[in-house]
Amino acid sequence: MRKNGQVSTPSLGIVETQIATVFDRSDPLRMRSGATLAPVEVAYETYGELNAQRSNAVCICHALTGDAHAAGLHAGDDRPGWWDNMIGPGKPIDTDVWFVVASNILGGCQGTTGPSSIDPETGEPYALDFPLLDMADFVEVHRGLARHLGIERFAAVVGGSLGGMQVLQWSLTHPEEMGSALIFAASSRLTAQNIAFSAVGRQAIMRDSGFNEGKFLTRGTTPAKGLSVARMMAHITYLSEEAFQEKFGRSAQAGELSPNFGIDFAVESYLEHQGQRFLSRFDPLSYLYLTRVMDYFDPFADEHALDALVASPVRFLVVSFDTDWRFATEHSRRIVRHLEGARLPTSFREIHSSWGHDSFLLEIEQYHETVRAFLDRAAEDLA
Amino acid sequence: MRKNGQVSTPSLGIVETQIATVFDRSDPLRMRSGATLAPVEVAYETYGELNAQRSNAVCICHALTGDAHAAGLHAGDDRPGWWDNMIGPGKPIDTDVWFVVASNILGGCQGTTGPSSIDPETGEPYALDFPLLDMADFVEVHRGLARHLGIERFAAVVGGSLGGMQVLQWSLTHPEEMGSALIFAASSRLTAQNIAFSAVGRQAIMRDSGFNEGKFLTRGTTPAKGLSVARMMAHITYLSEEAFQEKFGRSAQAGELSPNFGIDFAVESYLEHQGQRFLSRFDPLSYLYLTRVMDYFDPFADEHALDALVASPVRFLVVSFDTDWRFATEHSRRIVRHLEGARLPTSFREIHSSWGHDSFLLEIEQYHETVRAFLDRAAEDLA
Repeated sequence: MRKNGQVSTPSLGIVETQIATVFDRSDPLRMRSGATLAPVEVAYETYGELNAQRSNAVCICHALTGDAHAAGLHAGDDRPGWWDNMIGPGKPIDTDVWFVVASNILGGCQGTTGPSSIDPETGEPYALDFPLLDMADFVEVHRGLARHLGIERFAAVVGGSLGGMQVLQWSLTHPEEMGSALIFAASSRLTAQNIAFSAVGRQAIMRDSGFNEGKFLTRGTTPAKGLSVARMMAHITYLSEEAFQEKFGRSAQAGELSPNFGIDFAVESYLEHQGQRFLSRFDPLSYLYLTRVMDYFDPFADEHALDALVASPVRFLVVSFDTDWRFATEHSRRIVRHLEGARLPTSFREIHSSWGHDSFLLEIEQYHETVRAFLDRAAEDLA
Repeated sequence: MRKNGQVSTPSLGIVETQIATVFDRSDPLRMRSGATLAPVEVAYETYGELNAQRSNAVCICHALTGDAHAAGLHAGDDRPGWWDNMIGPGKPIDTDVWFVVASNILGGCQGTTGPSSIDPETGEPYALDFPLLDMADFVEVHRGLARHLGIERFAAVVGGSLGGMQVLQWSLTHPEEMGSALIFAASSRLTAQNIAFSAVGRQAIMRDSGFNEGKFLTRGTTPAKGLSVARMMAHITYLSEEAFQEKFGRSAQAGELSPNFGIDFAVESYLEHQGQRFLSRFDPLSYLYLTRVMDYFDPFADEHALDALVASPVRFLVVSFDTDWRFATEHSRRIVRHLEGARLPTSFREIHSSWGHDSFLLEIEQYHETVRAFLDRAAEDLA
């Protein structure tokens, strides 16, 4: 198994992020909460070629802290996109077959409109005046981008973790817009413990004296310390206990252990690094908005949730990882139980991996073979 | 099962915390690090009567955030001590039989000398000039209190979590000073994941702008927000996922869920309350010092660790709880493997409880009966 980022030659070559305005004041985004939002700009990348029938598009939905740069290399960068092991020529999502669209999520901070974007009403960042988000709003923006690109239906929509939750939501509300839905390491409903981790992360940000009720951008402060604590804590849930033990054990960061309150153990150095690195690429407001959407997601609470999907079936692949304790296999099984209960065509695989939740990002042979085989069947429909 | 604190009439009646100076400048505490400390005052309580032979003493070692008030009621309080369900007349640690000593740990903040105590050299709180602690230092202070009380040997030493770690340390270095050792929900060596949680809690405190390099007491600031975040996070690990789900599920704190970044879910209210309540009773510096001792504890790394104990065997009761994921049963099994490997008399029980790590504080029938039966056998030696 190789970890993402260790592939030396990203076979897609140099790629670029583009920006599209998918909602504007004449046609604003109408949100689940009743609010409207305009403009909505979306950062996206595409890989491969859209065929003449426009039937070979695959949409990638990213997880909490992802971005539009899923594969290939940005000029001047030394690391490829976050899912480069999955997407590319000859890879499980094969760009010789598929036209792949990856975009940054609504409310994100990597080019798509979010809480740190400028509110045209005030000329200042929205901050906490940005409307609260729902999983359905993420889907509406994906649909807006699809319209912009002239895609009426995706052959497949794919995502892990929060990405998988978007796929599920989309399949329930607009099943006619996709052939297949691939949902990895996701959940249809967070547990109390999941919400607890999410809540403490937000509290670390909001209690930072630099947070200033969300107005830190205009006040020249930053809740960076709180954001790094939130990220460090979240990272504990992204790896399995086994992975932590294998990777770090109790080894010292430098030579012999000599007790103090700094970085003594290697695992402390790792978390510190993760917390620090996150600051340069993520926005504290996006962290609040996006995690809250996950807390509230509970589509099967609606007894008619599956009605549209039953009328227009989608083929599902649901994958979990046996050491994932953030969204353990039971979360995936719950999705599968609902889908199978409605007699929808559903493949389910629990994959062995020692890495925990982050496994969906990694090059794990059984996982990649499962995705490849599933999409090979979907490709037969293209012919 | 009743939870601690729900017993309406604490049968020990009104009790009081006392303070003893167990080390002074003429006879300072010599610490594992080589540092010395004086004076060392210890806050303690006793329940029951010491017999004429001074042979019926039981020492209680508390966990990370405990104190000397283990049982009975303080005048004016409405809640009994933290282990009142375990200690009292007719209870598993029966004060009709045993003379029970409970004290606040070295480095604590409930009456025993700790980092917020006044350094006699400077007239100001020690803060981060307080010497770093080791599990062995906790034991030396327990031994100092025993001398002060005229107790040469305890019939039993008992503790859960960090308390159990103190019991283990003491049994390894001074086995002749105890008849039995009762170790609940403890560990002989933290995993990388355990250390990770510990490290993030400390970072939440130290990164709070009120921390001021530990000098907050003299600068009029406080890292209260960081401490509350640390406590909220730690609380997630004290309960099982099952307990969180049973207790809170996804229920709303007030009426219907209506999304915002405040307290929407009941589980958020619980954590908020735990974080807030902790501020009135705990010191951020103690939190740093005590958690660090746990990270470093690894007695079996010394191949001669068991030599003294083999020469002077102690009877062990080791208890774990099946839903404890902070110190899962494997942590207890590791202790048992070492003890049994040295042919020491060891009873081990994994108790079923849905509550996770905090189970050792709760009134769980099978657990209490196990403790009672073990101590009944120990009481036979008194006759």
